[in-house]
Amino acid sequence: MYCIGIDIGGMSIKVGIVDRDGHIIKKDRVVTDVEGGPNKIIDDIGKLVRSLIDPKDRDFVGIGIGCPGAINSATGTVDRAYNLKWENVPLAELLARYINKPIKVSNDANVAALGETMFGVGRMYSDTIFLTLGTGVGGGIIIDNKLYEGNESKGAELGHMVLVVDGEPCSCGRRGCMEAYCSASALIRETKKMMERDRNSLMWKYSPTLDEVNGKTAFECSKQGDGAACEVVNYYVKYLGEGMLNFANIFRPQAIILGGGVCAQGDYLIYKLKDYCKDRNYGFYGTPRFDILTAQLGNDAGIIGAAGLIFSDLK
Amino acid sequence: MYCIGIDIGGMSIKVGIVDRDGHIIKKDRVVTDVEGGPNKIIDDIGKLVRSLIDPKDRDFVGIGIGCPGAINSATGTVDRAYNLKWENVPLAELLARYINKPIKVSNDANVAALGETMFGVGRMYSDTIFLTLGTGVGGGIIIDNKLYEGNESKGAELGHMVLVVDGEPCSCGRRGCMEAYCSASALIRETKKMMERDRNSLMWKYSPTLDEVNGKTAFECSKQGDGAACEVVNYYVKYLGEGMLNFANIFRPQAIILGGGVCAQGDYLIYKLKDYCKDRNYGFYGTPRFDILTAQLGNDAGIIGAAGLIFSDLK
Repeated sequence: MYCIGIDIGGMSIKVGIVDRDGHIIKKDRVVTDVEGGPNKIIDDIGKLVRSLIDPKDRDFVGIGIGCPGAINSATGTVDRAYNLKWENVPLAELLARYINKPIKVSNDANVAALGETMFGVGRMYSDTIFLTLGTGVGGGIIIDNKLYEGNESKGAELGHMVLVVDGEPCSCGRRGCMEAYCSASALIRETKKMMERDRNSLMWKYSPTLDEVNGKTAFECSKQGDGAACEVVNYYVKYLGEGMLNFANIFRPQAIILGGGVCAQGDYLIYKLKDYCKDRNYGFYGTPRFDILTAQLGNDAGIIGAAGLIFSDLK
Repeated sequence: MYCIGIDIGGMSIKVGIVDRDGHIIKKDRVVTDVEGGPNKIIDDIGKLVRSLIDPKDRDFVGIGIGCPGAINSATGTVDRAYNLKWENVPLAELLARYINKPIKVSNDANVAALGETMFGVGRMYSDTIFLTLGTGVGGGIIIDNKLYEGNESKGAELGHMVLVVDGEPCSCGRRGCMEAYCSASALIRETKKMMERDRNSLMWKYSPTLDEVNGKTAFECSKQGDGAACEVVNYYVKYLGEGMLNFANIFRPQAIILGGGVCAQGDYLIYKLKDYCKDRNYGFYGTPRFDILTAQLGNDAGIIGAAGLIFSDLK
């Protein structure tokens, strides 16, 4: 038994055949023709799927799709995806003209959460929170092995939980969201601020101009013991830790899984986060603690998680 | 078909027979004999239940219990309840010696959330968030007409979501929790602070000494147009609104229901909250908005909601 998993991104669309264990048997990709519009993109996807698999194969049980933006997963419609320039695109319905199999669509961060929990680093757990720490902060919630997307599949906007009322401005228009403190963009902002304050910091050697600062600058220099860099990292860890503790108090997950660019810091980041959260957990000794893990499916998370949309329904 | 709903409080235990529509047919109460210990209290409950209903009645389908503290709802055990001085009390098991019917136990705030959503002001909705604004801030989460308690029934600690990293100290040991801004205690703290700053405020007429300040002081004087009182109310509304918007972004509930002492302010509070939240909702025009309601079951919420633990399982 296998599924097709589709990961729609602004640059490329990845399609893979995924087996029941979450292994990709075969995969291919196509450039996302944003200017071509939804019909052209869906035509490209349909043709790519048919080139990979015989739609009549009885072992082929369905298609899962992860797509950026606001999705109505009940109908398989993309309500709006800014980087695809899509609005009200009935994705599942249009793709069904090419392949007559069950099709499920969800938001890309949700899909990655499902992939990591079903087949990745979280596969020992049934209840997890997934956070992608990239340009923004995306999130996914797994409750009892199922994706929880919020009512009308419009929740799980975990990056837009305010951690500091009246705090840093966020892309969403509010102030003080977790995204404004825990995204790679926020890390870079704080790194630059600190570099301007400390002209002697090692960070100026790592990134000789402010334009060259990236999400690694502070972390790499902090590992060398640079005081200013350590301050940036501690600041980042503090806000990320506070956000994770909030989710712990709401969901009491068995594990929080971190994905996205910043999680490339691996154990260096994880140990600091564990230290931060250890003494700040809510409640008495019997309150279950959460594990902190880094995502392990990498670039394949989208394809595998998308397939998980179909597999998790079969359970 | 009917259930017994039991509301265990630190002062008294309320027991009622509740029908399928959430109406209380008959009720009674007994003083909570905290010093007598768990066995004495459970004996009191058992006798009270048997005085209200024939345990052999075939229309009597089960017993639901709302209890303060940390509950393991899978086993019906009270892990810890500070104000009852209980620790690891197998409540369901012990009560089953008196009445051989299905028994379910949950946290009191969770139970009130279920009651309001099944039978109270939220009965038109399937997905709600319930907040009790009292000495602390308690919470309950209803997803698709079912109580969601978090993994191991230890989540839904909605009052302990940090809104201000490094903010006001909270009873839980962290700083900046919603409880430290949105409880009646926080409202009283801010009222006193403002009164000390403004000796001419009308609030000094309403509450001539700081010891007389209560949760109504600022609200009542704000209705009279007192500037200092309005500032306190706006501060309270702002933090409560920010907290509610956070829950909206995570769960996208159809409604947020407010209970507890502060919600006695009714529409005066609700309209201010709606105004605050209106322009701060996340996302584009298609994102579902949430309604803001005040609880309507009052003192009976505990009994009715507890019965709901049994009824919601029958659905």
